[in-house]
Amino acid sequence: MTDPVVLVATMVAKPGQEELVEKTFAAALPKVHAEPGCLRYALHRRTGTTGEFVMIEKWASREALDAHMKGAVMREMGAALAQALAGAPDLVFLDAIPVGDADAGAV
Amino acid sequence: MTDPVVLVATMVAKPGQEELVEKTFAAALPKVHAEPGCLRYALHRRTGTTGEFVMIEKWASREALDAHMKGAVMREMGAALAQALAGAPDLVFLDAIPVGDADAGAV
Repeated sequence: MTDPVVLVATMVAKPGQEELVEKTFAAALPKVHAEPGCLRYALHRRTGTTGEFVMIEKWASREALDAHMKGAVMREMGAALAQALAGAPDLVFLDAIPVGDADAGAV
Repeated sequence: MTDPVVLVATMVAKPGQEELVEKTFAAALPKVHAEPGCLRYALHRRTGTTGEFVMIEKWASREALDAHMKGAVMREMGAALAQALAGAPDLVFLDAIPVGDADAGAV
C-alpha cells in the first residue's frame, strides 16, 4: 500500500504580479482537483502578505504527485507563472504521523 | 461569521529528543482534537528528517486557537517540550483562498 504524500509548497509573487498568480491558481485548481490521486490541493495566502501563496497538498501516492508534476495542468500553470514568481517554489515534503481522531488528525 | 485559521507550525527536536517529542504529541493530540473549534491538528515529520515535526492546524476561529494556546493541554505539552525543542516553534499563519472542489480545495 503506497503512502499518501503531503506537500507544503510556498510560492512568492513578484511585486505587482500577485493578482496574476492568484488568478492562475484559481483557473488551474478545479483541473488539479480532478487529477487522479489528488486528495487535497488547498490554496492559502500567508497572513499579512499580499504575494506569499502556500499550497497544502495531499496525493494518494508519490506516483500520483509525479504524474501531476509532469501533467498538462502543471505545464500550463508553470508557463503562466514563469515570469510572475520571485523564485522557485519552496517544497516541504511531509510524512503523516496519524494520531488521535482520524479526521482531525490528518490533512 | 469568523473565518477559520490555518496554521503550519514547525518544531525541531534537539538531537536525542525526537522520540520524547513524538510521544508528547501522541499523548496530547487526542485531547487537542476534543478542544472546541479544533478542525484539523495533523502531525507530520518532514521527509528525510528524524526530528523536524510539522503540525498542520485548522481552527474554527482565532478565538478557538487562542483558547487552545492558553489551555491546559498546551500547558502540559509546553512543559514536556520545554527542554526538548531546539528553539521556539516556527508559526506560519495562513488565510484560506477557497477555489475549486470544496473538499479538496480546503485543509
